[in-house]
Amino acid sequence: MRIDILSLFPDMFQATLGESIIGKAQDNGFLDIKVTDFRDYTDNKHNRVDDTPFGGGAGMLLQAQPIFDAMSAIDEEIKGQYPKGRVILMDPAGRKFDQEYAQELSQEEHLTFICGHYEGYDERIRNLVTDEASLGDYVLTGGELAAMVMIDATVRFVPGVLGNMSSPMGDSFSNGLLEYPQYTRPADFRGMKVPEVLTSGNHQKIKEWRQRESLRRTLERRPDLLKTAKLNHEQQLMLEDLKLEQDPDVPD
Amino acid sequence: MRIDILSLFPDMFQATLGESIIGKAQDNGFLDIKVTDFRDYTDNKHNRVDDTPFGGGAGMLLQAQPIFDAMSAIDEEIKGQYPKGRVILMDPAGRKFDQEYAQELSQEEHLTFICGHYEGYDERIRNLVTDEASLGDYVLTGGELAAMVMIDATVRFVPGVLGNMSSPMGDSFSNGLLEYPQYTRPADFRGMKVPEVLTSGNHQKIKEWRQRESLRRTLERRPDLLKTAKLNHEQQLMLEDLKLEQDPDVPD
Repeated sequence: MRIDILSLFPDMFQATLGESIIGKAQDNGFLDIKVTDFRDYTDNKHNRVDDTPFGGGAGMLLQAQPIFDAMSAIDEEIKGQYPKGRVILMDPAGRKFDQEYAQELSQEEHLTFICGHYEGYDERIRNLVTDEASLGDYVLTGGELAAMVMIDATVRFVPGVLGNMSSPMGDSFSNGLLEYPQYTRPADFRGMKVPEVLTSGNHQKIKEWRQRESLRRTLERRPDLLKTAKLNHEQQLMLEDLKLEQDPDVPD
Repeated sequence: MRIDILSLFPDMFQATLGESIIGKAQDNGFLDIKVTDFRDYTDNKHNRVDDTPFGGGAGMLLQAQPIFDAMSAIDEEIKGQYPKGRVILMDPAGRKFDQEYAQELSQEEHLTFICGHYEGYDERIRNLVTDEASLGDYVLTGGELAAMVMIDATVRFVPGVLGNMSSPMGDSFSNGLLEYPQYTRPADFRGMKVPEVLTSGNHQKIKEWRQRESLRRTLERRPDLLKTAKLNHEQQLMLEDLKLEQDPDVPD
């Protein structure tokens, strides 16, 4: 998968996308990530990329020209190698990013992220994009972090990227439920003990405990997820049992 | 405000939090951000921070010990200078991060972010935290990007951080509505023109146009926000008018 990023802060990406799993995936040829500093494409001699808004108001807006010309240069560069693919602009009014959206983007051969900065951007930039995406209902100083988050969540679904780590399908959300509590050595850490069942060696009991705790955590903290989770017969019975357990009107 | 970050990838923060507005805020003394590599606090000679889960299963879990000891070292360091403050763990089951949460965190004098990596972490680490937070319903390879996003959105509310840029209260969401479209020079960019009203110089008309377009965009793309937005009488009338405009059964 090829990923292009348009940003005024290319160094931010070097450090984050070069580390850890994403860095390894680039070394191994599963990902080809390129950051373009669109300041290099300004057509004015001061290399300005922003200007004041028409109609007045505080703050500066990104101009259309550097973005349009940087995009043309990318189109030229990838021609014959990758399809044009989807072009994503981070915008608070955009489609909410979630695991399903990540999986959808991971099917593409080429993604381009446009990272705004300053107070906003010229509306005409929207003409270049296929997707407007939002991480959540909060405002960031720039689109860079948002793009990094989307790239990170997306490339986990690209075959080969996670290597021989367990599949992303085992994560929270991928089965529609929150994950069960997990513990590692030591079994007794400063008086805090691991639940006995986990050190029992009884695999059937461990499996049941994990299913139950996964359901319990989801019921307690994200009951909305239960509406869409696909539960088998056993899980449905467990869930009913957990609900009765939590009901103060039901005697033990 | 003091911010502590516990992470195995301190370099990721250098590049992102050192740039742009957050970098300036640190230079100007409004923010004091320190990243602690908790690998330095392991008590085993191989500097391992992770181990296999009790009860079996794929993947590695962060152990409790390095995190507990790194936290103690931070407590010791800040003693007398900053209060203990809130300790935030990124978790998909956590409280959904939003603009209100950001504002709430910005009132604190001291925040600590614990960034997990690997497949998960030992459940006992939760005993150290005051907040479990989630960016959204998606899974990241590590907590670093999520912490950066939360820090970025939060510190924008810390007085002095945005400098003489416009207040974060002018952003999307802060008034409960999406922002109106914005345009900067040139007025005609490759045949795409700025709406005439914005170059008219009529401030009253510009203000009305912006209010209307802000309401229109919110109505079209995030109608859920209208339920909680505080609209004045004029805005309510505009909204009714926009609804009629969009109703195919109403003649022009």
